[in-house]
Amino acid sequence: MSQPFDIDELAQKLIAGNRVALAKAITLVESTREEQQLQSAELIEACAPHAIESKRIGITGVPGVGKSTFIDAFGSKLTESGSKVAVLAVDPSSGVSHGSILGDKTRMEKLSADPNAFIRPTPSSGSLGGVARKTRETITLCEAAGFDTILIETVGVGQSETAVHSMVDMFVLLVLATAGDELQGIKRGIMEMADLVIINKDDGENASYTKLSKASYQQALHLFPAKESGWTVPVLSCSSLSGSGIDDILKSTESYFNHVRVGGFLEMQRANQNGYWLKHAINEELNHRFYSDPSTKVRMEKLTDDVKSGKVSPFVAARELLKNWSYKS
Amino acid sequence: MSQPFDIDELAQKLIAGNRVALAKAITLVESTREEQQLQSAELIEACAPHAIESKRIGITGVPGVGKSTFIDAFGSKLTESGSKVAVLAVDPSSGVSHGSILGDKTRMEKLSADPNAFIRPTPSSGSLGGVARKTRETITLCEAAGFDTILIETVGVGQSETAVHSMVDMFVLLVLATAGDELQGIKRGIMEMADLVIINKDDGENASYTKLSKASYQQALHLFPAKESGWTVPVLSCSSLSGSGIDDILKSTESYFNHVRVGGFLEMQRANQNGYWLKHAINEELNHRFYSDPSTKVRMEKLTDDVKSGKVSPFVAARELLKNWSYKS
Repeated sequence: MSQPFDIDELAQKLIAGNRVALAKAITLVESTREEQQLQSAELIEACAPHAIESKRIGITGVPGVGKSTFIDAFGSKLTESGSKVAVLAVDPSSGVSHGSILGDKTRMEKLSADPNAFIRPTPSSGSLGGVARKTRETITLCEAAGFDTILIETVGVGQSETAVHSMVDMFVLLVLATAGDELQGIKRGIMEMADLVIINKDDGENASYTKLSKASYQQALHLFPAKESGWTVPVLSCSSLSGSGIDDILKSTESYFNHVRVGGFLEMQRANQNGYWLKHAINEELNHRFYSDPSTKVRMEKLTDDVKSGKVSPFVAARELLKNWSYKS
Repeated sequence: MSQPFDIDELAQKLIAGNRVALAKAITLVESTREEQQLQSAELIEACAPHAIESKRIGITGVPGVGKSTFIDAFGSKLTESGSKVAVLAVDPSSGVSHGSILGDKTRMEKLSADPNAFIRPTPSSGSLGGVARKTRETITLCEAAGFDTILIETVGVGQSETAVHSMVDMFVLLVLATAGDELQGIKRGIMEMADLVIINKDDGENASYTKLSKASYQQALHLFPAKESGWTVPVLSCSSLSGSGIDDILKSTESYFNHVRVGGFLEMQRANQNGYWLKHAINEELNHRFYSDPSTKVRMEKLTDDVKSGKVSPFVAARELLKNWSYKS
């Protein structure tokens, strides 16, 4: 029916767990072309009812903390225990900054050769809002393809965490043990979101600082108000290289999911997140309708200069632009 | 023509500098009633061409830092030097939290009796976005009424600063001199916005710490990248009670405005701000049209439950809601 994708066929293959179909479907979702966006919406509609309830885990930390090697070790442990793991990323800056997460699949050597793992780099361009939305839709596709654990990597430098927080059930913060003031450079807001703090690279020289660092982080976490979920945030440590500590981390994430499922927090958080994405999608579509209207472009160009130079008030201009505009579907 | 305000008459009086008319006009702008919002748009349209280019200065600092007494002293100095000063506030939380800024005009004893000053408390309710927009519109009204300096007070606890930053030319951060770790509690983002840091309450016991505090703040400011405006952020001190230091602060703000006017930064920043508000106003109106449509409410209620419970994907629901919706003006 549709060109170049047959959406029904693609959806069927995806739901059957076909990885090539999943990769193709994500490419469709990431496309910014009008026609492909319509197909993407159809695809999501076909896949959504088949999405299983996965564990969605966000993983953050400053560059250099070892997110990729951690995900390689942690993800492999998950697949060993019978899980199917999808690894996604939200990093809108990756097009610009080098040494970026997931750009290099070879950083996840074990996982990239694992038939029960699926790794997808971050969409290469777009605004944070756009990338986040596409990632949210990609989660649905992965769940429809049978992945029961979704790991979402994000570079720990700012607003990406808030975006990721709107789509995960659990938020893991990776840090390094250092001798100095180890809390520096980690934003308060990010600490506050964490459901689990992991001191990575607990090996070599760093290992001697781990104990002290653990105490510092535990102390810092005490300064925050209690989590709404009632969960007490543990501080664990691991070596992603040797694999030590990974078992305990797996146990801790399982405890977390038991806790939030039993207490009803998981359900409530997902309801809020779904409400957020509904509003977000409506807002996006309303803006799209307005800005993609050819008549808007002509009138915007004319008015924008006058608004920027202060000749016309932005509110007067907005009113003028919208006065005679209506959307015909 | 319109009830209960005659917009033309109100605009004329306001432009002539009538304070009662200005107060009435702001009340109209702050109204959330549909009919009054239309009148408010007409009013802004009539006033905007008469707005003079004022100096718009944002003033922030944590509760207790003495913002009101500082504005009383600084504003009085401004009117003495021939300025007409309007004092506004952005504090969406003021309806809830007590001890709030500007709630009590008596905190600005001199200024509230000054014929060349106009003090307006923060709108008592509404979302941050809503309050910010109304404040932005109120600036235009004050400028049309001949006020050449607009001071915008904001409580230094979070997002309000970002909102205020989208409407001011200069951002002033008030802090206290303390013996301890004086940078604690001030967010990095707020320090980064500051064009001038003032150590307030440089009197009594505090005075002995001022010198050390100045050095700490100067050092902290060095850690930030250079300002886009090319301006070097000074750290000054004053006693709002005795008035000492206020003259230097006045001189420093004048230097700042000279600097950004000559360098073209002021013009560029205002152009960006106007562009931001144009987009903001368009977005607001598009959402208003959708959510205030009676048919939306009925359909939203039906779908929201299914979205929240995860039965329907938020993106599928958004598409469904918007498919047959169009706005008729």
